[in-house]
Amino acid sequence: MPHLIFRGVAAEQLAPVSQQLVEELAELCQCGTDNFTLECLQTTGVWAGKLAPSYPFVEISWFERGTEVRNRFADIVTRHVHAAGVEEVEVAFRTFEPSHYYIQGVPCK
Amino acid sequence: MPHLIFRGVAAEQLAPVSQQLVEELAELCQCGTDNFTLECLQTTGVWAGKLAPSYPFVEISWFERGTEVRNRFADIVTRHVHAAGVEEVEVAFRTFEPSHYYIQGVPCK
Amino acid sequence: MPHLIFRGVAAEQLAPVSQQLVEELAELCQCGTDNFTLECLQTTGVWAGKLAPSYPFVEISWFERGTEVRNRFADIVTRHVHAAGVEEVEVAFRTFEPSHYYIQGVPCK
Repeated sequence: MPHLIFRGVAAEQLAPVSQQLVEELAELCQCGTDNFTLECLQTTGVWAGKLAPSYPFVEISWFERGTEVRNRFADIVTRHVHAAGVEEVEVAFRTFEPSHYYIQGVPCK
Repeated sequence: MPHLIFRGVAAEQLAPVSQQLVEELAELCQCGTDNFTLECLQTTGVWAGKLAPSYPFVEISWFERGTEVRNRFADIVTRHVHAAGVEEVEVAFRTFEPSHYYIQGVPCK
Repeated sequence: MPHLIFRGVAAEQLAPVSQQLVEELAELCQCGTDNFTLECLQTTGVWAGKLAPSYPFVEISWFERGTEVRNRFADIVTRHVHAAGVEEVEVAFRTFEPSHYYIQGVPCK
């Protein structure tokens, strides 16, 4: 954790900005870079009766860290997606409860 | 928002019914059709020891609009998936908090 | 329900252990095996500036069944992913409200 799940952003676009993205997020969250997971979902958008590019969206799943960190986290992600050449992006956060999250079968709380 | 994320429904099946689907949802939600995102996830189902077709499922992520709108929204989605030739489908709603949702880095609340 | 959504575990790896996995989960949850859905998402991981294998992760969406069942459920999933040849895995639970879940357009509550 945190997991960053991308739709409408190709892995090839994300890769060049990924290292700096993760470093800035790790500094913000005061944790190691290896806590972060970046995954691009393979999706097909549909719009107005036709197949269409997926709308750029990043869903972040994490343990809640409060409004200030969340705002800054969203800003960092948005800036790096822009830097990757994607002009518009939306970012949303989902919160996992530590007691509902298991690493190798052991709950985080 | 709202986002409609489909599993087990091919984009090619969804496309022909997508325009009317979005128009009915926009009328229900009293918003423009361009607020809606339709995405088909590429998935592989597994059942009884073998690869299998994915079970048709639609996950809707939105800001909560109450029981009456939700019931009607689910009905509209279900009817259009049926019209696309898919006989059985399940639909579930996930709620995002506006304060946890960012458009171009700016929170919705 | 429950839905088990896999990232970083190939359907071909999961298939051989899937039958026993579902049987143990059905016994735990006191329900039929056909209540379970197993889906592998097609994803591309990104790490350190490059494309990378996705980190093995299982997201379980269900109606809440309490801590004891959840702990045992996570343990069963973790053991079978290990048996599939995947050494490390994280498992997290998301809860759907029955009133927000529709089968053929009919809410579960």
